[in-house]
Amino acid sequence: METLFSGITVVPVDERDTVLRDAYVGIAGGKITYIGDRPPEAKAARVISGANKVMIPGLCNAHTHIPMTLLRGYADDYDLHTWLHDHIFPAEERLTEDMIYEGARLAVLEMLAGGTVAFTEMYGQMMQVGRAAAESGMKANIAQALIHIGSGAYDAKTDARFAQTRELADAYHDYDNGRIRVDVSIHAEYTSGPAVWEEAARYAIDRGLGMNLHLSETREEHEACKTRRNGRTPAQVFHAARLFNVRTTAAHCVWLENDDIEILGEMGVTAAHCPVSNAKLVSGTANVPLMQQRGVNVALGTDGAASNNSLDMFEEMKAAAILNKLARRDPEAVKAADALRMATANGYLAQGRAGEGGRIQVGCEADLAVLDFDKPHLTPCHNVISHLVYAARASDVCLTMVRGKILYENGEFPALDAEKIKAGARKAAETIAGSRHY
Amino acid sequence: METLFSGITVVPVDERDTVLRDAYVGIAGGKITYIGDRPPEAKAARVISGANKVMIPGLCNAHTHIPMTLLRGYADDYDLHTWLHDHIFPAEERLTEDMIYEGARLAVLEMLAGGTVAFTEMYGQMMQVGRAAAESGMKANIAQALIHIGSGAYDAKTDARFAQTRELADAYHDYDNGRIRVDVSIHAEYTSGPAVWEEAARYAIDRGLGMNLHLSETREEHEACKTRRNGRTPAQVFHAARLFNVRTTAAHCVWLENDDIEILGEMGVTAAHCPVSNAKLVSGTANVPLMQQRGVNVALGTDGAASNNSLDMFEEMKAAAILNKLARRDPEAVKAADALRMATANGYLAQGRAGEGGRIQVGCEADLAVLDFDKPHLTPCHNVISHLVYAARASDVCLTMVRGKILYENGEFPALDAEKIKAGARKAAETIAGSRHY
Repeated sequence: METLFSGITVVPVDERDTVLRDAYVGIAGGKITYIGDRPPEAKAARVISGANKVMIPGLCNAHTHIPMTLLRGYADDYDLHTWLHDHIFPAEERLTEDMIYEGARLAVLEMLAGGTVAFTEMYGQMMQVGRAAAESGMKANIAQALIHIGSGAYDAKTDARFAQTRELADAYHDYDNGRIRVDVSIHAEYTSGPAVWEEAARYAIDRGLGMNLHLSETREEHEACKTRRNGRTPAQVFHAARLFNVRTTAAHCVWLENDDIEILGEMGVTAAHCPVSNAKLVSGTANVPLMQQRGVNVALGTDGAASNNSLDMFEEMKAAAILNKLARRDPEAVKAADALRMATANGYLAQGRAGEGGRIQVGCEADLAVLDFDKPHLTPCHNVISHLVYAARASDVCLTMVRGKILYENGEFPALDAEKIKAGARKAAETIAGSRHY
Repeated sequence: METLFSGITVVPVDERDTVLRDAYVGIAGGKITYIGDRPPEAKAARVISGANKVMIPGLCNAHTHIPMTLLRGYADDYDLHTWLHDHIFPAEERLTEDMIYEGARLAVLEMLAGGTVAFTEMYGQMMQVGRAAAESGMKANIAQALIHIGSGAYDAKTDARFAQTRELADAYHDYDNGRIRVDVSIHAEYTSGPAVWEEAARYAIDRGLGMNLHLSETREEHEACKTRRNGRTPAQVFHAARLFNVRTTAAHCVWLENDDIEILGEMGVTAAHCPVSNAKLVSGTANVPLMQQRGVNVALGTDGAASNNSLDMFEEMKAAAILNKLARRDPEAVKAADALRMATANGYLAQGRAGEGGRIQVGCEADLAVLDFDKPHLTPCHNVISHLVYAARASDVCLTMVRGKILYENGEFPALDAEKIKAGARKAAETIAGSRHY
């Protein structure tokens, strides 16, 4: 046994919202091999005291664009359209491959320090994100966003864009025994057309890859699609193009109609809820309880750091709970345990990793986070799950582990040079911002 | 000069949203005596390097009930009425004076560690909160909540309750040269009546005290008042009772009507906006931009830790910005700089301390917080004020100072025994929860 946590509080994230007290959790060969109320017989190379500590499954950020850490705070207090077209797209044109890599590495630091062990990513120049993800030790489902506003036909230019996805899949799909997976991505309904979607679906089905797309984020986008496509919604036209025939994550889902939700439920599509970004960009609040009632798996994402402006899944859990209560005028709309499940088990299901983790269970890979509850703002503790969602902060995480390997502990990243990464990111940001900067 | 911050970034919170780079800030006699772009001539007893640090005015929590830290996570995912009547009121009946003191001391730790230097408090058994506030070194406006659901007449029983306010004012009003002030408090319209309000107003006016009350927090409360009082709103009946004739803080203000907002603006009443608590308890989102357009001073509060569940003013600033954007469908409804002003200068104005602080300015008392920006989640920094509101966390605060005295620095509280306070609070919480606990 490599690691033993002794006398620790464990939130396994199961159907009964169990909380184990004074538990022993043993890790061997990258997996959780022991959970019990007394020490295991096997000796452990390292024993970590669990006094005042709480262990949770590592968090899964189900929708993000990690290189956008470089654009954190670059443009705020705009609606999505203005923000994107007048500020973000022009800045993104200045992003080089090196910058993408630097931004991705910076995001890895932030995610690991906040207990996030896995992320679902869609962006451009993804070979660089693949490189950063491979080096990070984290789990990731990565996808090259396909944007092709052309004739609508599948032509040589479209194929050149598809070539990026093929290259990414060749390099990183199933990398390190599935630690990294490559999904196919359609950026959104309004940035491509049916010929592209059908080819994307065909490729994903043939190659056995998942799908990652933006769906009905804003009312404007949703209504414009209906106007453009004979009253059909983005979910309907994507479904018709067979995009949902593979494991799919659809981000945002703010403006889905009842029939759209039925489609997602029927096809097993995950909705990646991004409450903070959707509020900040004035998009709205997706109806999480309704989606869940109709059998849709709802996971939780921060979106990119340029629209959030953080990759903090603790903040996101609290936002998911309180924004859904508010929007539905129902205090039970999303409860604490629901939010925690969305950020853990539901994210792993979305990534096609249900058997692999997202819960603390013997046989799962040891993907977990430990929080230090010995803090004024977590005292007293009447209810551990309530504290995790409503009172804990990313900064309460003291240890993050993936496949049994400690990637973050008490402010240190054993495998990463944090100072070098921050310096690289600052340099890249100066170039992007140019004379506007500082 | 006692303390000199050298080469620090300063956000003074002025009308032009200035950000000073590489500044020198000198503190002497508890006041800010020097701000410049080169070192002052006077020598300082201690020089603190400002590399990668950002100084802001200390935050002012404009509405809270600090002993409720003991009930943090005690009951969640209920609407305000169920939460209060079925869970919180019964638990509060078990609070002894010692517990109130322990809960208040615990809150002091959390507030100081998160850069909060001042708070506006309303609760019961306030002599104990006064004691904790006096010992804390923080600034506080404290008020004994008057709840009197009786005949409506001003009788001996009412007077006994008023005696608590008189005792509090005698003990703590203007304590330590005004570091602590005592306000008069009417808990809410639905927990007392006109005879009590008139007496409260008379006492406050005669004694020169401020007023602290809850106003139109829920739609039900607002409508019930109109039904009960010939169509008049809580703001109208309070105004008629002269409660607004002194400096007043009205918490929540979610369901104010246009005429109510006019009254607040005209009478100089501060609205203490509590977006997280109002969302979690499904009360709604107060219309901050409308109140500001009509000249109402809007400050920011966390409410109690039982309904939030934290006293984190950074989280509250972000919530104020994104929830108002969402509710108003306007990305400019509350911008980052607006939220920062609400949490600092506007809070000081609400407390009657406008000349005293809430900004970094020569002549103000040295009530300030310093954040460490050398963190992955604050890298790069395109915009300091954006980061303070949208990306920074309470845990980024590395130093909190009141009147030039360091009350928190890098995890330590020089004047408080944090371990003892946490232990005391845990013990109190066990008694409150009884068999329900753990």
